[in-house]
Amino acid sequence: MGSPLNSSPRSADPPIQADVAVIGGGVVGHGIAWEAQRSGRSVVLVDDAPGSGASWAAAGMLAPVSELHYQEEDLLELMLESSSLWPGFAAGVAAASGSDSGYLTTPTLAVGADAADRAALMDLRAVQQANGLAVEPLTVREARRREPLLSPGIACALDTPADHQVDPRRLVASLRLALAGAAARTPGLAVDGAVEGYSIPDRAAGLLREGGAVAGVLLAGGGRIRATETVVANGLRAGELGGLPEGLRLPLRPVHGDILRLAVPQHLRPLVTATVRGMVHGIPVYIVPRQDGTVVIGATQREDALSDAVSAGGVYQLLRDAQALVPAVAELELLECTARARPGTPDNGPLLGRVPLPAGAGGHIPGLIIATGFFRHGVLLTPAAAAICRDLLDGKADPRWSAFRPDRFSRPVTAAGTHTKETA
Amino acid sequence: MGSPLNSSPRSADPPIQADVAVIGGGVVGHGIAWEAQRSGRSVVLVDDAPGSGASWAAAGMLAPVSELHYQEEDLLELMLESSSLWPGFAAGVAAASGSDSGYLTTPTLAVGADAADRAALMDLRAVQQANGLAVEPLTVREARRREPLLSPGIACALDTPADHQVDPRRLVASLRLALAGAAARTPGLAVDGAVEGYSIPDRAAGLLREGGAVAGVLLAGGGRIRATETVVANGLRAGELGGLPEGLRLPLRPVHGDILRLAVPQHLRPLVTATVRGMVHGIPVYIVPRQDGTVVIGATQREDALSDAVSAGGVYQLLRDAQALVPAVAELELLECTARARPGTPDNGPLLGRVPLPAGAGGHIPGLIIATGFFRHGVLLTPAAAAICRDLLDGKADPRWSAFRPDRFSRPVTAAGTHTKETA
Repeated sequence: MGSPLNSSPRSADPPIQADVAVIGGGVVGHGIAWEAQRSGRSVVLVDDAPGSGASWAAAGMLAPVSELHYQEEDLLELMLESSSLWPGFAAGVAAASGSDSGYLTTPTLAVGADAADRAALMDLRAVQQANGLAVEPLTVREARRREPLLSPGIACALDTPADHQVDPRRLVASLRLALAGAAARTPGLAVDGAVEGYSIPDRAAGLLREGGAVAGVLLAGGGRIRATETVVANGLRAGELGGLPEGLRLPLRPVHGDILRLAVPQHLRPLVTATVRGMVHGIPVYIVPRQDGTVVIGATQREDALSDAVSAGGVYQLLRDAQALVPAVAELELLECTARARPGTPDNGPLLGRVPLPAGAGGHIPGLIIATGFFRHGVLLTPAAAAICRDLLDGKADPRWSAFRPDRFSRPVTAAGTHTKETA
Repeated sequence: MGSPLNSSPRSADPPIQADVAVIGGGVVGHGIAWEAQRSGRSVVLVDDAPGSGASWAAAGMLAPVSELHYQEEDLLELMLESSSLWPGFAAGVAAASGSDSGYLTTPTLAVGADAADRAALMDLRAVQQANGLAVEPLTVREARRREPLLSPGIACALDTPADHQVDPRRLVASLRLALAGAAARTPGLAVDGAVEGYSIPDRAAGLLREGGAVAGVLLAGGGRIRATETVVANGLRAGELGGLPEGLRLPLRPVHGDILRLAVPQHLRPLVTATVRGMVHGIPVYIVPRQDGTVVIGATQREDALSDAVSAGGVYQLLRDAQALVPAVAELELLECTARARPGTPDNGPLLGRVPLPAGAGGHIPGLIIATGFFRHGVLLTPAAAAICRDLLDGKADPRWSAFRPDRFSRPVTAAGTHTKETA
């Protein structure tokens, strides 16, 4: 295109040089890039459409308590760790960007529509309590005193004060401002050849390999990035990269979700003050209120889809179930229907960390960090993922997170790289 | 803006001169403009956003039989007249534009969901038959042999072979091509100062009055059009024009409708071959199949709305009721939710014709034709409206259409114009 905003380096150009290259510009990739940058490293982030994947759809619930599932205690620990990091992370992004990412400590109300939903939520509460999490039953009368537009027909409501929210679209925008601002102010952080000192508007074709190490990124447009460390944070596409360590299996599967954005007419504001997470005849639905008078209603989970097509049946189900909890949803203005795929893994945990070499060889593949497979939890887990990656860059690995090592579904990994499709 | 496509004439410029000025670029305005042009007249069409109003939402059903309502025999005659003009009109537009406006003679199937819906459709059939219209009951088995994806739970189906369809968005595009093409090929038809020889990208502020006559259009951007005849075809905004004859009341009210466009996945094509017009527990819904593998599902009728906001409850209702008739609707891809206002009148008939002067004065306001208030029938009635306006331009008035005279809701009209807001 010729304009600096659209130009991508070509193979004939000298390689771009940075301390850290992050492949993938969703919430997680941006969070890692920003944390790496504020640890004093020069950073480039590679994405041809930043923030347009799962992050574009995400509601932004920061809900370690509500998202607890049986037998996912390792993941709970990571979610609680990240939840504890969120206030500082949000404050840091706000200070660095001079913008508001929509972080709100609004509480969450878990609501069941019928007796079976009530039983399921009370069963979950037993597990939550066994893990030391505060979830307090309210009478329907108490719940409706807090949220007058809740249906009088609900079967139960449980207060979950620790589950909050952020606006993922604003968060990506804030992180981009923070990254650009630091690169502009701090000459050592600005990367030559990157837009705004950090951004590469291109797709990664593969990893640049040198011997057993990863030395950067090969771009689809033909250019190269040389980086001391490369972080693979491109969600579902991580497994498509050339040059991944031979034997490393990243078993990511797309779990599509439909999600709605709606405007609340003035006379119904606020529709709700808390995030309402419902179980309606066994199907989950949530309503997240934003400060601008909109709400987000989500989300379906479909594993049969092939594209980002919005499902008519999914939209119907969301509107039906949200109305069962809050009948006035029928009076809202439907602004947007969106569908995206979440990167799921077999155990619902992320693929996060360095890639160890076989037992005999010791150590790990130099220069490579994997950070993908965050499934439904990418926004919540961003501060933890960013902190864990920064520790890894510093040479520290916290044994608490070894359950998420990215090779846990792989046969032994070797230092050799898989074939990389080089582009001219 | 400076670009020819966006420039509008200013008041300092000499006035644009044309035989006919048409205010309003919906389907009706375009149809009238094209008919006037092909009768050898130079034409300008004034609209700052052609085709973006009710025409943008319309499904394009050409359904005089299904749209029959009790006690609307005058309107039925006009609808049948227009229906008989449609094949020739569509062929003429196709030949003049070299493009396809999506006119299809697919039949219509009226379907009831329950016993009460069946009773209502059979009652309507009695009225249809009394008016000589063919509507034949099918068994559910016969209906499902024609349309295998119809729900086996429907209560009745009636074949309505005379009700067809067109694609209103493609129709507007085709009419614009036809207008531009003729203006380019025929020097006498091209209007100086109009984009493509016929299009004025501006809004009409009022009518240009000279004595008792209408002599053209005052543009919101400050320019003027001098025209021998001016046709007011800007839907709901007709009553807002300055310079309308004193006493002329155009009682238009917005009747908002939500409408959906969806893609049918390959394995479900064709979802239906006929247009399905359902009555589901007393609420109407329709599914119009297009040749490109999409369907249109509509439409709600809401009189409480203030804007083109899409109603969440409306979308829910359409998806619910369409699924009741064709369960596979749940598996479609939701492409678009749109809402627009139809221009309704007290008797559901259009305001169409010249404006007579009081009995003593005789004659009519020179230079003025009104063509608005087409409510749910604008697309169907376009060929008739165009033919009636062409006859009026030729000095002929068909007494069959006097029931639609535009002053029928007015106190006596005088030749004086109401105040026009002039803009600098």
